[in-house]
Amino acid sequence: MKKNVIVGQSGGPTAVINASLYGVIIEGMAHEEIGRVYGMINGIEGFMSGNYMDLTNDLTQEELKLLKLTPAAYLGSCRYKLPDDLSSPFYPALFEKFRAMEIGYFFYIGGNDSMDTVSKLSRYASHHKSSIKFIGIPKTIDNDLIHTDHTPGFGSAAKYVADTVREIVLDSCVYQQKSVTIVELMGRHAGWLTAASSLARKFEGDNPVLIYLPEAAFEFEQFAADVEKALSKKSSVIVCISEGISDANGKFICEYADEVRTDTFGHKMLTGSGKMLENFVRNRFGVKVRSIELNVNQRCSGMLASATDIEEAVAAGREGIKASLNGATGIMIAFKRISDSPYQIQCVTVDVNEVCNKEKLFPSHWICDHGTNVTEDFLTYALPLIQGEPDRVIKDGRPLYLYRS
Amino acid sequence: MKKNVIVGQSGGPTAVINASLYGVIIEGMAHEEIGRVYGMINGIEGFMSGNYMDLTNDLTQEELKLLKLTPAAYLGSCRYKLPDDLSSPFYPALFEKFRAMEIGYFFYIGGNDSMDTVSKLSRYASHHKSSIKFIGIPKTIDNDLIHTDHTPGFGSAAKYVADTVREIVLDSCVYQQKSVTIVELMGRHAGWLTAASSLARKFEGDNPVLIYLPEAAFEFEQFAADVEKALSKKSSVIVCISEGISDANGKFICEYADEVRTDTFGHKMLTGSGKMLENFVRNRFGVKVRSIELNVNQRCSGMLASATDIEEAVAAGREGIKASLNGATGIMIAFKRISDSPYQIQCVTVDVNEVCNKEKLFPSHWICDHGTNVTEDFLTYALPLIQGEPDRVIKDGRPLYLYRS
Repeated sequence: MKKNVIVGQSGGPTAVINASLYGVIIEGMAHEEIGRVYGMINGIEGFMSGNYMDLTNDLTQEELKLLKLTPAAYLGSCRYKLPDDLSSPFYPALFEKFRAMEIGYFFYIGGNDSMDTVSKLSRYASHHKSSIKFIGIPKTIDNDLIHTDHTPGFGSAAKYVADTVREIVLDSCVYQQKSVTIVELMGRHAGWLTAASSLARKFEGDNPVLIYLPEAAFEFEQFAADVEKALSKKSSVIVCISEGISDANGKFICEYADEVRTDTFGHKMLTGSGKMLENFVRNRFGVKVRSIELNVNQRCSGMLASATDIEEAVAAGREGIKASLNGATGIMIAFKRISDSPYQIQCVTVDVNEVCNKEKLFPSHWICDHGTNVTEDFLTYALPLIQGEPDRVIKDGRPLYLYRS
Repeated sequence: MKKNVIVGQSGGPTAVINASLYGVIIEGMAHEEIGRVYGMINGIEGFMSGNYMDLTNDLTQEELKLLKLTPAAYLGSCRYKLPDDLSSPFYPALFEKFRAMEIGYFFYIGGNDSMDTVSKLSRYASHHKSSIKFIGIPKTIDNDLIHTDHTPGFGSAAKYVADTVREIVLDSCVYQQKSVTIVELMGRHAGWLTAASSLARKFEGDNPVLIYLPEAAFEFEQFAADVEKALSKKSSVIVCISEGISDANGKFICEYADEVRTDTFGHKMLTGSGKMLENFVRNRFGVKVRSIELNVNQRCSGMLASATDIEEAVAAGREGIKASLNGATGIMIAFKRISDSPYQIQCVTVDVNEVCNKEKLFPSHWICDHGTNVTEDFLTYALPLIQGEPDRVIKDGRPLYLYRS
């Protein structure tokens, strides 16, 4: 008997989360064991309120092609933590919805928190002898999921950072006067994306000459010494920092500023590390200084996405369908690197319970120059991930994306 | 007798100021009246210190091709105001350099301030019977030069804003909760670039739903009413503002914030209008709110440049050479629009004395909906300027640009 697929997106947007959705849809439609592919609108939170759509019926071939290239999250997202207590009435209510819709396969595209959802649902299903398969498809620009070489979304974000910082470097060196430019990049705990700013360099000694990650303790006086040394060599100094850089006691650098806010979840909202250091450099050195926060386009630029990342995101979605049809559940699709050159990866499955709620930090042996740089090994690792230009679809001079009507 | 060309770049970077330089070089090299094409390093300020290069000799064909696509200012720039007093010793010192280098043609690629330089030099030359021709090539993302339909640099910046804001719109609507996103765009006095955010819309009623330009007085209570109305219709509201929005008394909105700085010229440094309104909306409405400052990539993105803009910038440089060979001096190359559809422009020359130190503001009859939107006429005007993708040169996954060694 045919069973239906339900797929959702959760957590922050990326450039390729829709490419994984595309992968789930086209692979799902290719198997006769599968009836329909439904999409949860706004993740499991929206689904519980009855919001979903029939992706099999509602999208044309042309729209599917656009979906693959559309950044952000086509189905909408949520940040919804499932009850820790598996005897909560939430679970039977949800599984009753699954039963009514004849769901046999559940896919959740997301990061650590989303894998927690897959973990809980698969454990509940196991306890209650449900045959529904629960599969996680990895997604995060932060690249902080364990047991996978990298995550879909990181390559595109890294490419955006490399391209954009390279252009900032050109912009910053047009005047003769000494200047410092501080570029603040996303990353609360993991420095992968900030490390990608090293890809902006064209030659040995090129900017950005200083790179600070959350994984290395930040110290103001050492920073001042680093900047002073850099200014003695170059008139235009570019410094890239993670939003989440912190001192040896774990105090965020932005907390040295006046204003600290929390988001609706009580998370500290980290704005201002760049602005904080801008003021520090101005007061200390009296040179021209500015700070630039790259902001959300790091995670949602379809125009500057990586074709490699897009194709791998599609593959992760397709492999998820295949794994579920092979009987897998409670797993996440992961990438295993076969070789750097030629670059080759393999899709594998890993136990989602071992992935969820953990963070893969940037390795300390890839941090060098007293916490101000990253090693060649990182470049070898990251370069393959940013290769290839997306098949941009342009209409009237602007990128054409798929919107949910 | 052959005479040499000297060309410089001045003021802020753009995506296409090097395309105009490319135009001057290739057209200059095509005429036998012209010997060499020299480039001033860091504009007239650097040139006075003896910094220049021989563009005819030093660049290969391959490098010239890259130059055309390289953002920022290859020759470096300056912000140097020539003495108002034409009897200053500055002038004979400069003209002696011209004589020693057998300069017959002087080109300055820049905005209002650079045209002031061309004006002064051509007037000095006229008083002193110098035969050197002085030509201005327009350049500014602000689009605020008078007597030209538009300026090279604006189209690329407008395309960057359209693309980037469209992606921010997608990013901002993934969650169900009500939210306001404030995007701050460049423009101290002229709202052209902020108006270009209207190009991000895909359908009637699409975001950004509110657009505020410096040309319309900003009033906090009216803004609150505008946001409240927008939130009643859409859960995700995107507001685009110019950095230079001000109240009816001309007080900048960012001056309502705590910190006001001035740059080395005593110009007010306008950072914080977006952050100011972010706090205002949070306190007033209690909704999720964030502000995004697009920053320098608006003016220096080679990857998202407009092919139309690049070609027009090249044409402006070439037409400058032709005009100078025809005996013109004290002029700026300008664009005259022949038709909107099919889009057609013509290069003309205008008296540089009439252009310099003036600003073309956004027309009030193109501002509508009580200062919160721009009319269809603006879209008709701006759409042709953002057409066409650049011939991106990508190496190892990153844009390849020409660096001055």
